[in-house]
This record gives sequence, C-alpha cells and structure tokens, in this order.
Amino acid sequence: MINRRQLSRTFALGVAASRSRKFANAQENPAGSASWINVLPGIWKATVGTPEVFTPVRSRLMPPAQDKFSQLPNVGAPPLSALAGRVTERGCVLQISMPPGELIYGFGLQLLSFSQRGKKKTIRVNADPKLDTGDSHAPVPFFVTTRGYGLLVDSARHVDFYCGDARPRPTHSVKATLGAVNTPDMTRKLALQDPGEITIEVPRAKGVDVYLFAGPSMREAVQRYNLFAGGGLVPPEWGLGFWYRAEQHGDSAAITKLATEFRERQIPCDVIGLEPGWQTHAYSCSFAWDSTRFPDPKQFVSNLAAQGFQVNLWEHAFTHPSSPLFDSLLPCSGDYGVWGGLVPDFAGEKARNVFGDYHGRTLVDIGISGFKLDECDSSDFTGGWSFPDFSRFPSGVDGEQMHAVFGLRYQQAIWQEYKKRSRATYSLVRSSGSLATPYPFVLYSDLYEHRDFVRALVNSGFAGLLWCPEVRDAKNAEDLVRRLETVVFSPLAMVNAWYIKNPPWKQIDRVKNNADHLENDWQTLETRCREIIGWRMQLVPYLLSAFEAYAANGMPPFRALILDHPTDAALAEVDDEYMIGDRMLVAPMFAGEAERKITLPDGKWCDFWTGKPVGERKFSLPAKTERIPVFVRSGSVLPLAHVGPHAGSPESAKLTVKVYGDGSLSWQGGGVAGSGLALSWDEKSRKGSVRYNDEGRKYTIAGWEQLGEPN
Amino acid sequence: MINRRQLSRTFALGVAASRSRKFANAQENPAGSASWINVLPGIWKATVGTPEVFTPVRSRLMPPAQDKFSQLPNVGAPPLSALAGRVTERGCVLQISMPPGELIYGFGLQLLSFSQRGKKKTIRVNADPKLDTGDSHAPVPFFVTTRGYGLLVDSARHVDFYCGDARPRPTHSVKATLGAVNTPDMTRKLALQDPGEITIEVPRAKGVDVYLFAGPSMREAVQRYNLFAGGGLVPPEWGLGFWYRAEQHGDSAAITKLATEFRERQIPCDVIGLEPGWQTHAYSCSFAWDSTRFPDPKQFVSNLAAQGFQVNLWEHAFTHPSSPLFDSLLPCSGDYGVWGGLVPDFAGEKARNVFGDYHGRTLVDIGISGFKLDECDSSDFTGGWSFPDFSRFPSGVDGEQMHAVFGLRYQQAIWQEYKKRSRATYSLVRSSGSLATPYPFVLYSDLYEHRDFVRALVNSGFAGLLWCPEVRDAKNAEDLVRRLETVVFSPLAMVNAWYIKNPPWKQIDRVKNNADHLENDWQTLETRCREIIGWRMQLVPYLLSAFEAYAANGMPPFRALILDHPTDAALAEVDDEYMIGDRMLVAPMFAGEAERKITLPDGKWCDFWTGKPVGERKFSLPAKTERIPVFVRSGSVLPLAHVGPHAGSPESAKLTVKVYGDGSLSWQGGGVAGSGLALSWDEKSRKGSVRYNDEGRKYTIAGWEQLGEPN
Repeated sequence: MINRRQLSRTFALGVAASRSRKFANAQENPAGSASWINVLPGIWKATVGTPEVFTPVRSRLMPPAQDKFSQLPNVGAPPLSALAGRVTERGCVLQISMPPGELIYGFGLQLLSFSQRGKKKTIRVNADPKLDTGDSHAPVPFFVTTRGYGLLVDSARHVDFYCGDARPRPTHSVKATLGAVNTPDMTRKLALQDPGEITIEVPRAKGVDVYLFAGPSMREAVQRYNLFAGGGLVPPEWGLGFWYRAEQHGDSAAITKLATEFRERQIPCDVIGLEPGWQTHAYSCSFAWDSTRFPDPKQFVSNLAAQGFQVNLWEHAFTHPSSPLFDSLLPCSGDYGVWGGLVPDFAGEKARNVFGDYHGRTLVDIGISGFKLDECDSSDFTGGWSFPDFSRFPSGVDGEQMHAVFGLRYQQAIWQEYKKRSRATYSLVRSSGSLATPYPFVLYSDLYEHRDFVRALVNSGFAGLLWCPEVRDAKNAEDLVRRLETVVFSPLAMVNAWYIKNPPWKQIDRVKNNADHLENDWQTLETRCREIIGWRMQLVPYLLSAFEAYAANGMPPFRALILDHPTDAALAEVDDEYMIGDRMLVAPMFAGEAERKITLPDGKWCDFWTGKPVGERKFSLPAKTERIPVFVRSGSVLPLAHVGPHAGSPESAKLTVKVYGDGSLSWQGGGVAGSGLALSWDEKSRKGSVRYNDEGRKYTIAGWEQLGEPN
Repeated sequence: MINRRQLSRTFALGVAASRSRKFANAQENPAGSASWINVLPGIWKATVGTPEVFTPVRSRLMPPAQDKFSQLPNVGAPPLSALAGRVTERGCVLQISMPPGELIYGFGLQLLSFSQRGKKKTIRVNADPKLDTGDSHAPVPFFVTTRGYGLLVDSARHVDFYCGDARPRPTHSVKATLGAVNTPDMTRKLALQDPGEITIEVPRAKGVDVYLFAGPSMREAVQRYNLFAGGGLVPPEWGLGFWYRAEQHGDSAAITKLATEFRERQIPCDVIGLEPGWQTHAYSCSFAWDSTRFPDPKQFVSNLAAQGFQVNLWEHAFTHPSSPLFDSLLPCSGDYGVWGGLVPDFAGEKARNVFGDYHGRTLVDIGISGFKLDECDSSDFTGGWSFPDFSRFPSGVDGEQMHAVFGLRYQQAIWQEYKKRSRATYSLVRSSGSLATPYPFVLYSDLYEHRDFVRALVNSGFAGLLWCPEVRDAKNAEDLVRRLETVVFSPLAMVNAWYIKNPPWKQIDRVKNNADHLENDWQTLETRCREIIGWRMQLVPYLLSAFEAYAANGMPPFRALILDHPTDAALAEVDDEYMIGDRMLVAPMFAGEAERKITLPDGKWCDFWTGKPVGERKFSLPAKTERIPVFVRSGSVLPLAHVGPHAGSPESAKLTVKVYGDGSLSWQGGGVAGSGLALSWDEKSRKGSVRYNDEGRKYTIAGWEQLGEPN
C-alpha cells in the first residue's frame, strides 16, 4: 500500500530544502540497523543516522509518477531484511548480504564493465573514465541484482560500492596443505561464487536514506525506479530523426548551405547543431550570438525551420565576464571559476531561474529547439577544466555535491523554459545522475571505443539514462559505417562534424576534409550512409512507441538483454547487444573485428532485414556482414515509416507494416494500451487490420509485407 | 637555529602515539592563518586547526638526521608568508600563492607526468596508475617548486593538490569582443603563466601540520626533506650488484642449477629472488616453506651463499589461516581481509613486532638477505585485491590511512629485524610514502611503459624514494636490451623472470621459453646482456659513493636534471634523463623510437663510453645508437670496478680509473669529504694519485685511462 504521508513528506522536504538559501542537517532517526518503510507500491525507504539535506531525492524537482505504479505487480514485503548500517567518523557504512550467484548491474552510465559482482565502483562524475573505477559522465548510486531488487543510495557524494570484493577477515586458523595455489586467479573466481556482502560507504555524511525497489525481477525494479524518478519521457518526433552538428566556425551562410545540400542530396535531417563558434566567447561562454557570423539569428533559425530543420546550440555553463548573464549570475555562483567564468549554482533555484530565463528569452523564443551542454562532467584531472570539490555555493552545497547534480539541474533550468512555453525539447548533456528519467536529455561523449559506446548504451537502461553513441573521428569508411549503424539504433542519431567542413562520408581525413579534398568516389559512401540514415527515419514510429512505454510504465526503451530475461545465465555477460522496445534486438558490428558472436534470448527470433527465422541461440556472423545485425521476436508486426526529408514530413506519416513469422504479436503502439496505432495480422487470410484509438497519430498504412516464412 | 624543543616534542608525540592502542585527536592551535615555527635549520612547521594524531610525521619511527643539517646553507626566514588555511566540514583547505612562471615537481612516485603546474594530483595509493591523477604505488604529499622551497602536508589521507588549476571566480564583467577564442587551448596555456594559487584539500581531518623546507634552491629543499626524514641509506655492496628473480615454481634443485649456470656462463649475479612458489600458500601468504620444493631451506640458502649469492623472498603481507603467524596476528589485524587472509595492523607496534619477529626467527636467521613485498599498494579497483578504505584497525587508523603507510610500516617491521642482528638488507616493496628516505627498500612494478619507468625514476628523487625499473615482458630483443640498459643505471638492477624457466635472453616468448624452445642464436643476445650486466658491476663503487652522499647530506643519488639546475628553463620538462650522483647523466634509449632527443645542462660534458666532448646542449641520436647514452661532466675522474661474478668478489675490488677531459674534478667518494677513496689527476704529468682515508674501502687501483682528448 502507498504510504502517502511518508512520500509527500519526503518530496515536500526536498522542495523546501532546495528553496532555502543554506541547507542544514535534517533530523531523522538515530544511527543503527534501519527498518524499511513503505513509501510507494513496491518501494521502501530506510534511514541510517541523520542524512544530509542536500541529496538527489531530498532536492528532487520532479515528483514520482504515482498514478502509474498500479501497472506493476503487487509486492507485499520488502525484498531485503532490515538494513545494516552504521555512522562512522568517515561517513556511514551499509552492509547487504549477497548469496552465491547473485549478479549486480547498474551504477549509471558505466562504459568499461557490465556485470559488477566482485568489483568496486565509486560514484564520481569524471569526464575521463579510462579505468573501470565507477567514474563516468553520469554515474548513479543505483543498482539492481538478479535477486530481483534495486537499491538507490540517496547521496550526491562519492559513494563507494564494494560489490562483494570487500570481505571480512578470516577468524580461524587452518592446517597447511602443500602444493597449494600460488596465484590470485582462483581466489578471484571464488569471490564471485562465495556468499559475500555488498558494502557501501557514503563519505562525509552522518546518515543516509536508502530506497529499495522490489521486482519480482530486475525489470520491474528498474521500472519502479523510473516511475519513482517521475517516469520516462517521450521525445518530440523530430528528436528521433537524424541530427548533424556542423563545423564550429560555420556562419549562417555556411550552415544554410549545408542544410540545403542535405535536402538536395536527399539525406534526411531533422536537427542541425551549432558548435562553439556561434558565440562571442566560448571557453568560458557568453551565450551571445557573434554578430559577425550570425547577423540575424532569428531569421537564420526561421529560414531553417521553413525547410524542416530544428537548431540545437552547443554551450557549457561556465559564464564569461562578457556574457549578458554575468552580473545577474555573480551572486548565485560558486567561489571558484572555470576558464575565467562563473560556475552557476544550479543546486539553487535562483541560478536556475536566471540561467533559464536568459536562455528562454534570447534563444528558446527565437525557435532554438534545444541545447548541448558540454564540459559539465568534471574533467577533474584535465587541468583547469572544472571546479574543485571544496568549492562553496550560495545554496549551501559543496563542489563534490555540485558535480553530482550540475548536469542534472542544468537540465531542469533549460527544460522549465520549454515547459513554460508548452514546447518540447530533446537536448544533449554530458553529465547526469540520480532520478534523471523524466528529463528530455540524452548523454553523449566522444572519448570512447565503439564497443565502450555500446556497453554504455546497454548499461544506461538500468538507471533511467539515455545515451547517444555519436559518430565522429571514424578510423576509416568501415568504422564510419559501423558507428553510423549503431547510432541510428540508439536514442539519438547524430553525426558530430564540429571539426570538419564537409560531411565525413565525403572525406574522413580531417585536414583533407577542411581543404575540400574529397575522396574520389565519395558518392558511394554517401549512398551507403544515406541508406543507413533512412533506416532511422523508418524506425521513428517504433521508437516513439518504445518511449511511450517508458512514460507509461517505466520500461526503458533501450536496455540490456538480461533485464528482459533475468534468469537466463547465457545473457549474464552480454554487454554488446540490446533491446529496443519489446520486439527488437540489436547486435552492432565493430569495424576491424574478425567476426561477430551473437547470443539471443530464449524464444523464436527472426532476422529484421529478411524475416528469416534464426535457428540457433549462439552463432557468429562474418566481418563482411552487410548490415547491422538486428533481430525481432517472431510474430512481430512492425510499422516502418517511409523515408522523408525529416521526421515531421508527410512521407514519414506513411507506414509499411512488416510481419515476422506468424504475425501473432499484434502491434499496439509498442504494446502499451491506450496510445497510438493498433495493428494485427490474420495468418490464415494473410491480411492485416488497422485500428486507431482516440489518441492515435495521423498515420496512413501504405501496405503490409510478410517477411520470410512463418515459423 | 634549531628549535630543539619543538622538534623533540614532535618526534616524541609521534612515538607516543604509535604506541597507544587507540589514537585520539591531539590539541594544537585553533583554525585560521598559521605562522611558521622553526623546527630544524631551514625547516618550519605551521598548524591549521587540530591535526589528526595518526599522520606520517606524528607516527614517525625514524628521527631526523639532526647532525647533518650544518652542511646546508643557513636560511634565516621561512620562504613563504604565513600559511592561509581553514577548517571546513569536509576537512581543511590550504592556500599558497603562486607567482607566474613558478614550476612544481614532486608528489612521490609519479609515473605519468613531471612538471605539475596547472594539474591536480590526489595522493592515493593505487597499484594501477593508468591516468595522471596522482594515484601511484608511492605517492607522497610533498612537492618542491622553482621558487626554492618544498612543502610536506603531514597527512595519511587522500590529499588533493590543485597546482594552480583551481582558480577563484571572476569578480567583474567585461565588454564583449567579437571573433574571440572558441577553444579551451589558449585558456589552458594562460593558466600556466597567470599568477594563481596552490590549493590543498586534506579530507576528513579537522586540522593539519604543514612542513616547509627552505632552499635556497629546490635541491637544498629536497636535501632538507631527506634529512628531516632521517637521511639517505647506503645499500650493502651486494645490493648494487645484479639481481635475478627465478620462475615461481622452481624448487631448490632448479634454483641451484640456475645459479650454477650464471657462474658457468660468467653472468654476474648477486641476488636470486624466489617468487610465490617457495611458500605452502600464496595469495594469501603462509610465510612457510613448501617442503616439497624446499626440503632444507637453510642448507639451500647456505649453498647459494657459498657461491656468493644472496636470497630474496617474495611475499605479500596478507596472512593465510594456515600460516604459523595467523593466531598471533589475529588480534592485531584489520576487520577486513584480503584473499582470505589477515591484514596486519602495521600502524601498530604489536603487529610489526609479531610479523617482524617471525620473519627474523624463521627467515632472516637462516640467511635470507631481504624480501619483496608485493600487493601492498592497494589495487583498489582490481576486485578483492585490497582492503576497503573504511576498514578499522586496532591501532585506531582506518583503511584510508593504512593504505598510506602499509608498505612503509612493513619496511619498518622487516628492517628492525636486520638492525637487531647488525645486518644490512636491501629489499623491494611495491608501496611507500612520506619520510621513506632512510629505509633500505626499492620500489618496483611491472605495469608500465619503458618511458613511464624512466619518468618514475626521475620523479622519485624529489621525495626520498628509490625506484627499480625491473626488466620483464620485453616485446623483442631490442626492447630487452634497452630495458636492461636502463635498469643497470638504476638503484636496483633486476631481471624478473618469475614467469619463465630460462633467462629472457635465451627466449623472450613465454610459452616457448617454458617449453625450452630457445632462440637459435641465443648466445648472441646473451653476450650482449652479459656485457650490459657487466656495466652494472663496474658502476658499483660510483653508485656507492652517490648513496654515501645521500646518507651524508640528503642529496638523492638518482634525480631530475632540473634539481641540479633549477633556473635552467631548457630542463623544466626533461623527464627522460637523470643524474646519478654529481658526475653522470643517463638518457635511456627506448625501443621502437626513431630517434633520441637529448638536452644537456649547461657546462662541459663528455660521452661516458668514448670520452669525446659533446659539442651541443640539444641534439638527437639515431635509434641504432649502440649503447645507452651516458654523459659525464668534463673533468670527472671515475673509478670503475672490474667485472667479477658478484659485487663482493675480489675482482670487484680492482678499479680502473677513467679520466674525462682535463681530470680537474677529483674523486672523493662522490665528492663527500670523509668517506672512501680519493683520486686526483694531474693533467700536466698525465698521472693520477690515490689516497685512502681511515674509512676507505679495500680497493686497489689497476690503472688509469684518459679518454678522449682534454677539452
């Protein structure tokens, strides 16, 4: 049952705290083993010691999606016994027992590992996660386990999670045996199988709230977390089209020419992104148009809109003394700066309002569709790229806490301007954190290997995050194609060409590209890329329905296979394949690898491209495999859009329905009752039927196509 | 003037504290800006807030080398104004102003960077320093700057040093300019040149002592630090010979056979190291001989000693339940274990005594010359390879503090056993920290690139550390040769063949080596390696004299060029060349690089091998350069030993004196009055003269050789 009093108290406390100028410690129960108190269906809270006031939940700005929990199974009792915890001079320590074989996933946007048992993860925002330490653009102190629960540690500090690798000392001597193990390897294997404990240290805090999310399986635990965060978002249709970021020095004429070229060459595109050069000063930012490059920004945006393009603007939040924002931000900024600019106190309402209001008036109002917040992810050791952990902010938070929420609260500052205007945004941000689920922002970076990009996408689904494995700096044509294939099967399909004047398919080499020395046969690669971008345009209705499920019941639109099949041991380590919605499985190809090993979950699967049934659960595909391997559940009925110039074009509203296998898995806007289009297939007559409900989009069905043979 | 009362109080406090079972906070002066109090000649202390009791200085076990300060220049006033510091809820923060152009070096064994201005360094013991964050086997919260001072932050915690990269926010708006910088690069360059501040955050502590070491230059600041730590060590002669670690599964017969082969094939060798297989259990350790492999350890050691070999034993300190030590260590170990073994509370005297006493009785007494302590460097994110930061120890320290001293206090436990027996040791350890100067232990690792190894050697000299760039896992013959050349010009010349049965010069490939499939022409490579190892044997007297200076006046025997020439801008970034003693400069070659760029300090230099004068300060050598580039100051008179089977052999006491240039820089045991041999050269008569002082070693001079032409 819902404990509404508990919930509303929690939520109200957070809002009140975020409005107070200076946070003080809230009084909760004393230190010790803590019992679980039910706060929402299948969600419990336990408090150890006296938590800090500024935490992700206590300072939350979006309420839980309370009305949507009824879709999840009822769970009577918390899945864990009372929480063992103690307050120490260092902070506080929590202990959770872990039976043999239990596996752990999550911790936000992890790039370098997947299954976490036996490892240590530190939740620290850091732009350079080149080691598997937990550092990431968007780490989240939330995990799920195969026992079927999820746990959120409500802290904005650098929480350490020891996932069974911290082990109490032995207590008794044993007899010596000769010829024993003289290597650590076996000990490490044992650590994965022995019973152990998940041990969590929250630094500095004299107490902490912990939230427990019941299953019965990991899948429902993730759904509950997402609904607790406020529920998933549905992007605007254009957000699911194709994005292209132009070279950073391009002026309005150059950008307009590029846009025209896309239309002339029939390369679909919805969003054009501008990089630093649109501003009078960047690193740090002025947020003011450079009139030498953009003499009439409003007209420029309007002209692009007439061709069906949205405009997205790069920025970081560090505010240069020449910015019109400077004077009003100064009193609500941190005591340390970055690149000679102010660090807005986004933990406080005032800085969010000042920053947001300026963006609303000067940029949103002229038609800018969204932003890309760079450099908010604490490039901690790059040298001068971030603010120190000991920074102090007027709201009362310190630099360590601010790092955890800087990207997240920026999202709030921007999003509220779009909400005020009843407009949608779909934007980019390089850092996020706890309870980010409802925010219409997608994470990105450019530092990583293609495999790491895919692993990040797989992990993102455990913690309410969206991830864009953007394409740039491809090593060669094969790499460009393989990366582009991945990104069109991701939450945001973007090529980031900030450093080259011509699209990468014309010339991959940076120097040659900028000297307009194009590849002799560039049209061949352009044709290939046009086709791949076309796949994205076909997918938009399917993607929309996957996001509708995210909003309706918290099911992440992009997720690990293990989340749908939590007891399938064969999937426990699969970190290079993922589900989109309930029907589609993607297994990206990686350039330069000899073959692609694929594992499918139990059940019948078809090849997405040919409809042919797949015979085996484990198999390999050769490197020359032409198209990215995608599989659909046999029986699926999938509506694919026709390829238009952009996602809002009339062509894009025409659908061809593909039927896989016996077509028994009818289509209901992604399986969610009450939204969109309903399609079903009658295997005997080999005919489909269409039904629109009240909220259905204005699609027309151009035809039905049965692929392969029913199996 | 020496403030003896202040000094003895500090030292006594440390000893007292280390003997108490539970540390409590000591009361010092209140928080705020702190004045410098003189504690030793040219050394001042400032205290902010109430320091923790367990710190490197307060728990020190070696006293300062008080009688040796008189050799350094007198300095009347502290080189910095009063220390700005404040206690916060997070710990404490210190601020030191930094004029434009000031450069910073140090922080212990840094592998990935050299000049630190503009960077952030966190002092955290971590075995996997693959990013330039400050993490290292042996980080030290001590730095020196070109202003001519050194600063030690007396903390065992993860101290953050912001070396000018944390910058207060701007305070005034400025007018916008069009076409401004749209890249962070220029801002980064400015950060190195603008005035700024060194900002230091000590976590968790409610106060901290800071020690300031005067110059006038960085060189004397480092000397003062080393004398403050207790002064440098002089290794036993055998320690400076050649070391070889045998394959881990070898039994007494195999090891004895290997030793015999070294003698037969005239490969000099002083120390044979045994790897994990000597024990009944390793990972964790039993510290008990496996009688199946070593039925009579005493006889085995004694047989090797008869051939002039010392035996060194691998171990880690985590104590397996089958160890004879287990029951006595249990009450003085941490609450968490590693690999199923106990973590000895080395911060407490009891654990050191129990651990040391066992080693003394069972291993030192049968003739073991030293140990190699592995895995003491907190492989924090490897998974189960270390104890958590929140561990608790009976002495009152936590895991974070223990990591900072675990390797260091282990050294104490072992060294005290040798001192009790009036024997010398020269041992290996994988972690160390503050005030390590007097301990006869050399750091090592196997994780790094050859260039990183050399940079570590260069940096080690700033902080009283010794570093062994051990040879193993060479990529090819060239790499083996280049690495071997480097290691013979280092504090400890070792090949670590723990994973191969035959020496690497017989076969580099691991699998083939262990299958006894030797290279066809292995004798050629063996000859090359024999020659290089021979260089080491020739160097022993010179190395000894460099160490004698270390003991006499704190001058590090291996050090960066900038330390001897602190105002020479051309040397500010030179991290791949180093001085040995006052006469010799080494610039190792790296396999696979097209050329070797070399920068020499001002003054006249000769090629070590040929004696030819070097004409230019900056030049390049080709990749095919036959021998490692070594240069000596023109005028040097260097005694080189003859190559014997080991450093204590009669051949090694015969010296040939090499004279470079005009021979005007006479030899006095490394330039230190009062120790060793004195040699001088008369340029007119082209004759040398020899003088032994009272403590002189029993060397005989076999001849004099003037190299090149006097310039």
